[in-house]
Amino acid sequence: MGDWLPEPTRAQMSLDAVLHALSDPHRRRIVAMLAADVEQRRTCTSFGLTLAKSNRTHHFRMLREAGVVRQWDAGNAKLNLLRVDDLEARFPGLHQAIVAAEPRIA
Amino acid sequence: MGDWLPEPTRAQMSLDAVLHALSDPHRRRIVAMLAADVEQRRTCTSFGLTLAKSNRTHHFRMLREAGVVRQWDAGNAKLNLLRVDDLEARFPGLHQAIVAAEPRIA
Repeated sequence: MGDWLPEPTRAQMSLDAVLHALSDPHRRRIVAMLAADVEQRRTCTSFGLTLAKSNRTHHFRMLREAGVVRQWDAGNAKLNLLRVDDLEARFPGLHQAIVAAEPRIA
Repeated sequence: MGDWLPEPTRAQMSLDAVLHALSDPHRRRIVAMLAADVEQRRTCTSFGLTLAKSNRTHHFRMLREAGVVRQWDAGNAKLNLLRVDDLEARFPGLHQAIVAAEPRIA
């Protein structure tokens, strides 16, 4: 049981919102870790972010509301995946260029 | 006569600042028009931006302070050029992916 949290459709995704979402190093870390295996669903606590819970939640919400990640609310945890097909359809090459521009994340 | 306005070195450029600078449609329009001919130097008034002068100045300053454009102050006008070699060295493919993600600008 669970629910997908609200998100923009592919057509509703805006480059303004995506670039703003990716202009933060915590959020780029999340994207880079998801991009390393696009089939994976990761919990918000699995990214090694040294942030208070409320702050962490804020970052995931910004990514979801921009259309970068999709979130499944499983009740006791949220599972995150990268919207790689939607990103590639709307902004080809963009998330790859951004992920590649930073040192490899362990 | 004139002066180059202050700007970050290539090493000082940050992905945070570049992505934040490019998260605005006016600033992406400037970058797209400069990217169409990277040899050109264009005045701030030549981009067809429907903005008050102070607002226009703000956008060019954000681009310059992020390292995206270089500005030559010729006294009666500022000339702008894209720092294409620096962008490509630091963030390969990034500005091209961003420019390509939007409808062609006339």
